[in-house]
Amino acid sequence: MSDEATNPVIAMLGRRLRLAVIGGGPGSFIGETHRMAARLDDRYEIVTGVFSSDPGKSKRAAASLGLPAERTQGTVEAMLDAEAARRDGADVVAIMTPNDSHFAYAMAALERGLDVICDKPMTNTLEHAVALEARVRETGLVFCLTHNYTGYPMVRQARAMVQAGELGAVRLIQVEYVQGGKADETKPDPVGPWRFDPQRAGPSLVMGDIGSHAHNLVRYVTGLEVAAVSAEIGSIVPGRRVHDYGGALLRMAGGARGVFWVTQAAAGVENSLRLRVSGTRGTLEWEQEVPQRLTFKPLGRPAELLTPNGPGALPLARRSTRLKAGHPEGFLSAFANLYSDAAEVIAARRSGKAADPLASVLPNAFDGLMGVRFITSALESSAAGGKWVACGG
Amino acid sequence: MSDEATNPVIAMLGRRLRLAVIGGGPGSFIGETHRMAARLDDRYEIVTGVFSSDPGKSKRAAASLGLPAERTQGTVEAMLDAEAARRDGADVVAIMTPNDSHFAYAMAALERGLDVICDKPMTNTLEHAVALEARVRETGLVFCLTHNYTGYPMVRQARAMVQAGELGAVRLIQVEYVQGGKADETKPDPVGPWRFDPQRAGPSLVMGDIGSHAHNLVRYVTGLEVAAVSAEIGSIVPGRRVHDYGGALLRMAGGARGVFWVTQAAAGVENSLRLRVSGTRGTLEWEQEVPQRLTFKPLGRPAELLTPNGPGALPLARRSTRLKAGHPEGFLSAFANLYSDAAEVIAARRSGKAADPLASVLPNAFDGLMGVRFITSALESSAAGGKWVACGG
Amino acid sequence: MSDEATNPVIAMLGRRLRLAVIGGGPGSFIGETHRMAARLDDRYEIVTGVFSSDPGKSKRAAASLGLPAERTQGTVEAMLDAEAARRDGADVVAIMTPNDSHFAYAMAALERGLDVICDKPMTNTLEHAVALEARVRETGLVFCLTHNYTGYPMVRQARAMVQAGELGAVRLIQVEYVQGGKADETKPDPVGPWRFDPQRAGPSLVMGDIGSHAHNLVRYVTGLEVAAVSAEIGSIVPGRRVHDYGGALLRMAGGARGVFWVTQAAAGVENSLRLRVSGTRGTLEWEQEVPQRLTFKPLGRPAELLTPNGPGALPLARRSTRLKAGHPEGFLSAFANLYSDAAEVIAARRSGKAADPLASVLPNAFDGLMGVRFITSALESSAAGGKWVACGG
Amino acid sequence: MSDEATNPVIAMLGRRLRLAVIGGGPGSFIGETHRMAARLDDRYEIVTGVFSSDPGKSKRAAASLGLPAERTQGTVEAMLDAEAARRDGADVVAIMTPNDSHFAYAMAALERGLDVICDKPMTNTLEHAVALEARVRETGLVFCLTHNYTGYPMVRQARAMVQAGELGAVRLIQVEYVQGGKADETKPDPVGPWRFDPQRAGPSLVMGDIGSHAHNLVRYVTGLEVAAVSAEIGSIVPGRRVHDYGGALLRMAGGARGVFWVTQAAAGVENSLRLRVSGTRGTLEWEQEVPQRLTFKPLGRPAELLTPNGPGALPLARRSTRLKAGHPEGFLSAFANLYSDAAEVIAARRSGKAADPLASVLPNAFDGLMGVRFITSALESSAAGGKWVACGG
Repeated sequence: MSDEATNPVIAMLGRRLRLAVIGGGPGSFIGETHRMAARLDDRYEIVTGVFSSDPGKSKRAAASLGLPAERTQGTVEAMLDAEAARRDGADVVAIMTPNDSHFAYAMAALERGLDVICDKPMTNTLEHAVALEARVRETGLVFCLTHNYTGYPMVRQARAMVQAGELGAVRLIQVEYVQGGKADETKPDPVGPWRFDPQRAGPSLVMGDIGSHAHNLVRYVTGLEVAAVSAEIGSIVPGRRVHDYGGALLRMAGGARGVFWVTQAAAGVENSLRLRVSGTRGTLEWEQEVPQRLTFKPLGRPAELLTPNGPGALPLARRSTRLKAGHPEGFLSAFANLYSDAAEVIAARRSGKAADPLASVLPNAFDGLMGVRFITSALESSAAGGKWVACGG
Repeated sequence: MSDEATNPVIAMLGRRLRLAVIGGGPGSFIGETHRMAARLDDRYEIVTGVFSSDPGKSKRAAASLGLPAERTQGTVEAMLDAEAARRDGADVVAIMTPNDSHFAYAMAALERGLDVICDKPMTNTLEHAVALEARVRETGLVFCLTHNYTGYPMVRQARAMVQAGELGAVRLIQVEYVQGGKADETKPDPVGPWRFDPQRAGPSLVMGDIGSHAHNLVRYVTGLEVAAVSAEIGSIVPGRRVHDYGGALLRMAGGARGVFWVTQAAAGVENSLRLRVSGTRGTLEWEQEVPQRLTFKPLGRPAELLTPNGPGALPLARRSTRLKAGHPEGFLSAFANLYSDAAEVIAARRSGKAADPLASVLPNAFDGLMGVRFITSALESSAAGGKWVACGG
Repeated sequence: MSDEATNPVIAMLGRRLRLAVIGGGPGSFIGETHRMAARLDDRYEIVTGVFSSDPGKSKRAAASLGLPAERTQGTVEAMLDAEAARRDGADVVAIMTPNDSHFAYAMAALERGLDVICDKPMTNTLEHAVALEARVRETGLVFCLTHNYTGYPMVRQARAMVQAGELGAVRLIQVEYVQGGKADETKPDPVGPWRFDPQRAGPSLVMGDIGSHAHNLVRYVTGLEVAAVSAEIGSIVPGRRVHDYGGALLRMAGGARGVFWVTQAAAGVENSLRLRVSGTRGTLEWEQEVPQRLTFKPLGRPAELLTPNGPGALPLARRSTRLKAGHPEGFLSAFANLYSDAAEVIAARRSGKAADPLASVLPNAFDGLMGVRFITSALESSAAGGKWVACGG
Repeated sequence: MSDEATNPVIAMLGRRLRLAVIGGGPGSFIGETHRMAARLDDRYEIVTGVFSSDPGKSKRAAASLGLPAERTQGTVEAMLDAEAARRDGADVVAIMTPNDSHFAYAMAALERGLDVICDKPMTNTLEHAVALEARVRETGLVFCLTHNYTGYPMVRQARAMVQAGELGAVRLIQVEYVQGGKADETKPDPVGPWRFDPQRAGPSLVMGDIGSHAHNLVRYVTGLEVAAVSAEIGSIVPGRRVHDYGGALLRMAGGARGVFWVTQAAAGVENSLRLRVSGTRGTLEWEQEVPQRLTFKPLGRPAELLTPNGPGALPLARRSTRLKAGHPEGFLSAFANLYSDAAEVIAARRSGKAADPLASVLPNAFDGLMGVRFITSALESSAAGGKWVACGG
C-alpha cells in the first residue's frame, strides 16, 4: 500500500499465507472476485480448494487454476483434514458457497484452528449467527466477513471523518442499494439456482444479498447500531417466491433517524449503493458506481470532493489506496483491501507481532451477527404491519 | 415557447391577463419568484397587490414595484372589492401568504369570480382542503397550485414517458427531498417567523414545506395515487417545536411500492429533491439540483441522458422549454411554466377558446387536497407507531 | 436580485427604461431570448420595435407581442426618428439582427443619443469595430455587447476569485466551445439563411458565432488579453462554404499559455462551452451545460463545488443570483443579468446617480473590438500556416 | 475475464509465464503497479528481478517481495544471462526503468529471445525508436508498450465503436492530459530525480510522461495517424529546466482535425486525461478520472452512458472487464489488461496455439515509434514558431 514499501505478511512470516478455498469455481463471479482480491497484494498463496460439490468438477477447476492435483480433495471435510495434517497446511479458509452452508464450513474451519474469510450474509438464521459469533470469540481466530464495500477508500474516509468529528453528531442517514438484475418480468425466475430457493438463500433474498451490505455500510461509517426498525419487505415481481425489495425506517442508537431502501427489481439500474450521512456539522455523500469520490458538504463552507490519496485523505483511507490521486481504483481493489487487512491481522496473530491498528477494522463475526439480527427484526416488523421492532443495537 | 411564435393570451384576449398579488413583498423569496414567473412569458400584467398585512409597508412595496398608488388598497378584502368593481379589474389572484391564510384568501377570490394561483400546501387542515376543492369544482374557475417542480421540462418528460408506456408498469418509487436550511443546531429557531409557529405553519412544517412537493412529484410523474402510508415524522434538532424530518414507506394504488424521505436538517445540503421511478421496462432518475438532465435506464439498453429540446424530448417537455438543447433553463423557467400554462387555460376559459390540452396538466385543487390528505395520513401513521394508514388513493 | 429589495431602475428613474427592439421577430431564438431577458427583472418596458425587414411582417410581429400599432414603424430609421421625436421615446435600443447590420444600426442609435444593447460579434470587420468602439467612447453612452455567458453567476464567481487572488498568477487556460448544430453531413447547408452566406455572417461563421464567446470568456474570467495566436480555422464538413471549426494556441499577455477549440460540427454535442483556468494556487473548471456549478481545485486542499448563493459565493456572483442556493438558474437568468446590469448603469447615467460598481463589468464595445481583433489575427495565422500573430493584447 | 472460465496461459502452457523484472523497487509507484498488474489475472509468476542499480538495495527489494535470494543477480546483464542459462528461466522481461535505459534493456532481452513488456515512452530518441522497432519485427518476439490507458474497457469500447462504424467518419478530435503534480511553484524542482534531468528524461518531460499517452490514445481509439502537427511546447513554471506544458493542433491522415493539450503544472488537478472524438454520426467522450463511463452522443438520438459489461458493450470491452455491470474497475484492472493480453499472445506464440485476435491489439513497438516520432515533430514545430511539421502518419 501507498506508505509502506514492504509486504507485511512476508515481513512477519517470511512467506505468504496459505489459503484454501471453498466454493466459487472458475466462471463464478464471486469465486473469481475472491481469488483476484487474494492475489492483488501478494499476501496469499492459494494452495488448494474445493470448488464444487461435484468432485470431478472441483478437480478440473483446481487444475484450470494451476493448483497441484495431488493436493486436491473431493470434499470440504477431506480437504480440511488433509490440510490440518500437513506441515505446510493452509492457514486460512475462504468460504464463498451458498448462504446455507456458511455456518457449517466456518465452524469446521474454526475447529481446526484455521482463520476464516467468509462471504455474507454470515448465516441464514439468527441461531447460527449467535453460535458462530460466540465460537469465533472463544477461539480467538480471525473471522473476516466480506462486506467488501467497506474496503473502498472513500467509504473508509467517511468512517474516519465521522470518527474524527468532522460531521459532529450524526443525525440523519439515508442508505439505498438498488439493482436491476432481477427486474425482467418477461423471464420467469430460474428454478435451479440456490438463490431463488427460499430454503437455501435464507429468509429474504434481497436482504441477504444486498440489504446486509446496506445495513453494514451504515454501521461501518457511522459507528452507530440500529436500535429499531419499521419495515416492509416483499416481492414486487409477480410470481416471485423470494423477496426482491425492502424498505425500512431506522431509529439509531443515540437518536439519529434513517431510511433504508433495497431492491433487485429496478429495471436498468446496475449497482446503485448510495449513502448519505448528515451530522450537526455537515453531510457526506457516497455512491458505489463512482466510488472514487466522496462528497463532503460542511455546514457553511463549500462542498468538497474528496478522492483517494487526494488532499484531506485520512490515514484509514490512505492505507487503503495503492495509487496516486486521480488514478481510480475500483471494486476489486476494495475487495482486496479486506483480504489484505485480514492477512495482516492473521500474520500478526500467527507471528505474535502487532498489526497496524487500522487493519483491524475488518467486518467480523459480530458485524455478521448484527446483520442477521437486523434482517430478522425487519422481517418481523414487515409481518407485523410496520410495527417498530428492536434490533439489539 | 419553442413551437409557437405567438403569445396565446394576447392571441385569445388581445391583451395580457391582469394579475393581483396577495403576499410576497419585495425581498421575500417567494414573492420575487412568483413575480418573475409571471413576467417571463409576458402573459400577465401585475396591476395591484397587497404585499403585507401592514398597509404602509404594502403601499411602499407597491411603489417599489412600479405599481400605481391609486390602485393600491390596504387590505385584501378592499383590494378584491375594488378590483371587482373596475371594468379593467384583475382577472387572476396570486396568493403567496403564510399557509394558514391560503384558504380564506382563495375562497374570497373565488367568490368574486377570480381565477386563483396559490402557493402550496393548499391548506393547513383537511377540512379546509375538502371545502376549497369542492368550491373550485363548483365555480369552474381555474385554480393552479404552485407545485413548481412539476414545471421542469425533464419532470414533464418523465410524466410523458410514463404515460407513453416507456417504463411499462410502475413498480418501485423513491423520492427524497433533503435540505439543510434548518440544520444549524448552534442557532436556536427564531421565534417570530410564522414557519416556526406550529399554529400557522400547519401540523408539520417539513411535510408542508417540502413533503407536499415530494408527494405531488410522485403523483405527477407516475400518475398513481398513494394508497397507504407507514411513516415516522418528527424533529431531529433538539428543542425544535416543528417537524424537520419525515420518512415513509408507500403502497401505491395498483401495487407499486415506494420510499419517501424529507428533511430540512441535513447540514450542508442545498435543495436535493430526487426521484427514481422503476417500471417493468426501465427506470427514470431525476434530481432538482441538475434539473436539465433526465436519466432513463431502459431494460437491456444503455442508459440515456435526456435534455430539454434534445433528441427524444416529448411534446409535453418541448412545450415547456424555451431554448435550444444545451441551453439550460432552471427553477424560474419551471415556475414560469406553471404561470404560463395557467394563463393559457384562464385565457381560454375567458375567451371561450380552446387551450392546448397539454396546458391543463397543472397542479390543481384536487392535487392540493390529495397532498393534505397524504400529510394527514402520514402523521396519523407516525403517531400510531408506523401502522399503515390509507390515504384515499 | 438577492440583496436588494428594490428595482434600482424604478428607484432611480421612477419608471422602467423604454426599450426599442431591432430584429428578432417572434419565433426567432435570439429575439425571444432578448425579450425574456429584458422582462425578467422588470427594468425595461418594450415600447416598440422593427422585427423584420418586411414592414408587414414586422407590424404583425409587434401586434403579437402586444405592442401598440400606432407606435410601430416600417423601418429602423423611421422608428429611431419617431422615438427621438417623442417625449416618452425609447431610452435604449436592443439590436439582434444579422451580423453585417450591427454596425449601421448601432451607429444610428448612438447618433440619436440612445444607449445600445447589441448582439455579438460586434461587427464583421475590424474597421467597423474600431470605428464603433471610438464612437461609443466619444458619446459616453452605454454599449452592452451580449456576451451572455459572462452573466452566469458561476462565471462571475470565477472572475471574482481570480481578481481576489484565489488562483494566484494565471498560468494555463483551456477553453472550448463545441456544438453539433452544423454536424449533419447528410443535409446540405441551406442557401437562404444569412449565417451560411460568408458575405453576411462575417469572415468566419464559427469564430463569430461561438469563437467570440470563447475568447471573451477567457478575457472576462482571467482579466488577461491574448497577446498572440497560432491557429487553424476551416471547414470540416465537405462542401461547406463557411468555417465550422477553429483551433488555436494562445500566448496571453503576461506569459500564460492557452488552448482554444471551437466547432459547430461535433455531431450530437449540444452546447459544450468549457473553461479551465489554472493559476499558481489552484484551478477553476466550469462548463455551460451545468452552469450552476463551479469547481475549484486549490493546490493542496480538496476540490470544492461552488454554487450560486452557496457558501463562498463572492459579491459579484451573489448580485447575479436571484434565488437561494440549490435552486438552479440558467441561460435566461444569465442573459437577464446583462440586461439588468445594463439597465442599472443606464439609469444611473440618465439620473446622475451612482450604479453599483459591480454592475459596470458588462461586456462593452472595447470587448467587442478585442473580439474582432482576435478573430482577424487567428484567421491571419491560419492563412499563414500557423505563424504566431499578435492580437493587440 | 468474464466470458472465459479458464486461464488461457495455464490452458496453453500448463503453467504461468515466468517474469523477470527490471526496475521499480518496492515503494516505487510504477514498480508496484506493474507487479499488481502482473498478478491480478494469475498469468505470470515473478521469478526474479533487478530492482535497483544498487545491488544491495536490489537484493533487499527481492527479499521483501518474497523472491528467492539464490535467483537474484546484481545487474541486469547478469540476470538476463542467468535466466537464459536456466531450464526454467524467465520467459518475459518487464522494464520499468528511467526512459534513457529502455532501449538498451529491451535490446538485451530481445537478443536472448525474451518477450518484452516495456514502459513508455519507448525511447528518448527517434534513432533508438527506429532501431528497436525494427529489431522487434526481426525477432518476431512480443513487445508490449504499457500505454495502460488503452487497457480501460471503455477506451476499448470506444475503439470498437469507431471500428464498427458507429461514429461514421471521424472528423474532430480533442485530447487533453492535465495533471498538477508539477504545479507548486513554491518548491523548486528537485535536483536528483532523473525526471528533472533533461539528459535522462528525454527531450521533453511532459511529452514523454503524458503527451505520449494522449497521442497514443487518439491513435488507439480512432485508428488514425497524425499526419502533421503545429505545436508549442515549453515550461510555464519559472526556472524549470524541463517542459511542463504542450499544446498542438493536429491534422490527421484522412483529413480529420484535432487539438491536443498536456500539462503537469495545473495546480490542484489530479489526472485528467480526456478524449472527445466526433464523427459524422456521433461523438464519444471519455475521461480517465471516471473511466467506468463512456458517453456516446449519437446524431439525432439521446446521449448514452455506456458502462463495462453494461448493455451495448462490444466484445473488445467485454473481454477487458472482469465484473458485472455496475462494479467499477479502475486503473489497476486496465493496466492488468495489457499484462494479461500480452500473456495470452506470448503463451500462444510459445505454444504454437492461437490467441484470441482481440488480445493482439496491444500497444507495441510500432506504436512506440509513432509516439517518439510525434514528439520529435511537435518539438520541431514548436522551435519553428508553429510551422506545420509532418509526423509520418
